[in-house]
Amino acid sequence: MKAEIIAVGTELLLGQIVNTNARHIARGCADIGLDVYVQTVVGDNRGRIAEAFRLAASRADVVLATGGLGPTQDDITKDALAELLGLSLHLHQPSMDKITEMFRSRGMDMVKSNERQALILEGSTPLANDNGLAVGVGVTLDDTHYVLMPGPPREMKQMFDVHVIPWLQAKLGQDAAPLYSRMLKFAGIGESSLEDRLIELIDEQDDPTIAPYAGDGDVSVRLTTRASSQAEANRKLDRAEQAIRELAGEYVYANRDVPLEQRIVELLIDSGKTVATAESCTGGLVSELLTAIPGSSQALRGGFVCYTNAAKHSLLGVPLELLEGPDAPGAISEQTARVLAESARERLDSDFGISVTGVAGPAESEGKPVGLVFVGIAKRGEETQAVQLQLFGDRDGIRLRAAKQTLVMLWRRLD
Amino acid sequence: MKAEIIAVGTELLLGQIVNTNARHIARGCADIGLDVYVQTVVGDNRGRIAEAFRLAASRADVVLATGGLGPTQDDITKDALAELLGLSLHLHQPSMDKITEMFRSRGMDMVKSNERQALILEGSTPLANDNGLAVGVGVTLDDTHYVLMPGPPREMKQMFDVHVIPWLQAKLGQDAAPLYSRMLKFAGIGESSLEDRLIELIDEQDDPTIAPYAGDGDVSVRLTTRASSQAEANRKLDRAEQAIRELAGEYVYANRDVPLEQRIVELLIDSGKTVATAESCTGGLVSELLTAIPGSSQALRGGFVCYTNAAKHSLLGVPLELLEGPDAPGAISEQTARVLAESARERLDSDFGISVTGVAGPAESEGKPVGLVFVGIAKRGEETQAVQLQLFGDRDGIRLRAAKQTLVMLWRRLD
Repeated sequence: MKAEIIAVGTELLLGQIVNTNARHIARGCADIGLDVYVQTVVGDNRGRIAEAFRLAASRADVVLATGGLGPTQDDITKDALAELLGLSLHLHQPSMDKITEMFRSRGMDMVKSNERQALILEGSTPLANDNGLAVGVGVTLDDTHYVLMPGPPREMKQMFDVHVIPWLQAKLGQDAAPLYSRMLKFAGIGESSLEDRLIELIDEQDDPTIAPYAGDGDVSVRLTTRASSQAEANRKLDRAEQAIRELAGEYVYANRDVPLEQRIVELLIDSGKTVATAESCTGGLVSELLTAIPGSSQALRGGFVCYTNAAKHSLLGVPLELLEGPDAPGAISEQTARVLAESARERLDSDFGISVTGVAGPAESEGKPVGLVFVGIAKRGEETQAVQLQLFGDRDGIRLRAAKQTLVMLWRRLD
Repeated sequence: MKAEIIAVGTELLLGQIVNTNARHIARGCADIGLDVYVQTVVGDNRGRIAEAFRLAASRADVVLATGGLGPTQDDITKDALAELLGLSLHLHQPSMDKITEMFRSRGMDMVKSNERQALILEGSTPLANDNGLAVGVGVTLDDTHYVLMPGPPREMKQMFDVHVIPWLQAKLGQDAAPLYSRMLKFAGIGESSLEDRLIELIDEQDDPTIAPYAGDGDVSVRLTTRASSQAEANRKLDRAEQAIRELAGEYVYANRDVPLEQRIVELLIDSGKTVATAESCTGGLVSELLTAIPGSSQALRGGFVCYTNAAKHSLLGVPLELLEGPDAPGAISEQTARVLAESARERLDSDFGISVTGVAGPAESEGKPVGLVFVGIAKRGEETQAVQLQLFGDRDGIRLRAAKQTLVMLWRRLD
């Protein structure tokens, strides 16, 4: 079965945003055995949207569209498809009630145009938007299945994973032979080094297929196989996972699609341990990543953002003679990283203390180069470690990699 | 003049990579007055590539393609276009010499297939690849201009900026009248409310055009006009900006494309003031957003992540009788938000203290509903404010909106 993806939005055409939705949908289609042949981006123009749907439907069995479901004048995807298919639009009352309730609870007046977000096509299935107001639509006409989803990635991904995939699977019946996949997650190794270790396996093995992906400071390997049952799939996936673990097992932190910070929170909770943070160049990113995980209040005692020398001294007791003066090691040093990690641990009475201090750029600091970062790890009753890193990239990239490397170091101490 | 962008690559269709090239090309096209109407992604299939070129050429004056110029069997973009246009392919000797030299200098044997990277279409202009081996191609037939560029973003961007743009400008002559645009940034107002205020202006006004955009907790309006000079463009953009400010000026925080946190850091530095943070449910996100701005060390004294009640008490002195007990207001309360903001300000001796405490979910806390958030703002010598918010979305969404609302409150106090 063939699928096409249409993204609607002038902000995509103007290059203001990147089409990350297409990647998410493409992966999900692969999982249910749908082959994506073409992706299209069109602006908020009724004629061009309709033409994109017409063309896609002439080539594919499933047409998945994102964007143009919002309340404003240029959100016209539903109108364009309704006109093309000769279907009317009507109000979906539960979606309307949700919109009304949202405005009521915020004490705001509802602008009339918000009703547009509750419209669905005649004879269509409403697809719930758990993270927003615009309802999605699934509709089948002349053996073509059309799906309309909102543009904001957070809303689209949830709707696609939870509501669209089951709707499509029901519609496609036996045509979508089930694919099973498993994600192996790696930390502390780059994509090319990992691929280097696995290259022969990847070349030899075609069932399950082995596909490495690189994200932001994160490497994954996706194993995929077709099977008649979960049990049969598991046997095949287990064998492939074992083969990969023999080649690079020390870098595997999970065999499901979870971020490293979730694995860390789980390891901390399972062992009844806690952590505290002291962040300079990352400015709160490490604690933000950890607290993004539900339940992390059991694992993270708290943290300090000590962006300035004054804060390092007053909040975490870093001696001034370490920070200042011509012969002092400075804020960006192994010594300061150690004191920060130890003080954070002591002040919050946690089992682990982690710290990160470095030069995120754009300019050098203390005469030290952009990208130089020190990470400290203190553990109750053990000697404090500190490591020096030289990271590459722009300010955002260095901050993100510094935070991820800090988490990698904590994971290694926990594992 | 109309342009279309075609990306060739099965890895895009499978969702293995995101199409960032399209964004770069779209922005460059806007700069030279080319309107991008459609973007397409197709796999490494000769028939579908040719069909994509045929369709694009039927609608546009310029067709810009990326990908499929490499040495492997599935790099067939040049072959597909040559066949469609009835042109032959021949070797471009300088490109071939560069490939030969690269292999020689690395002491490697050149695989024959690398010759494919030096092929160009009959009558075409070779476009140099300063960061790679595959030469690009510009060719004009029947008044349509075709450009083929490599897929790797580093190679594509350099070729596009340095070689493609001048080639296109020469080909298009006076037809490419430059577009000028200006971004107005809004805080504290939703996209639909803003559009409601501006709707008559948007409908009446077609030069400059007025286009609202919504991001994550952030609304922008882009003004765009064609003009013969920057001075003429400024006159038109100034007039439109003034008209918008008369309708919604109190929400405008900048007339250039910067995030709210950058404006806040600028306002703090300009007024010689500083801020300190105390974050519970956002876990460091507010300080992370502020410290992402270069120079923020002059504005942010430091911060506390007080995710647990223990940390709220020990780090920031929130009285236990406020936090615990059947009749206590609890951690998620106006009173606690006030104490957190004041203590953060005092402990770091800053001019402002901002705090955020709430229920990010997935489960309720202290019997309070998911999305209930309190934001506190303390200012030296003034009474501390606290506001209650009811936010919607999942855990990540609530955390992000809580952080953004905290920044909006701080901006209002600064402005």
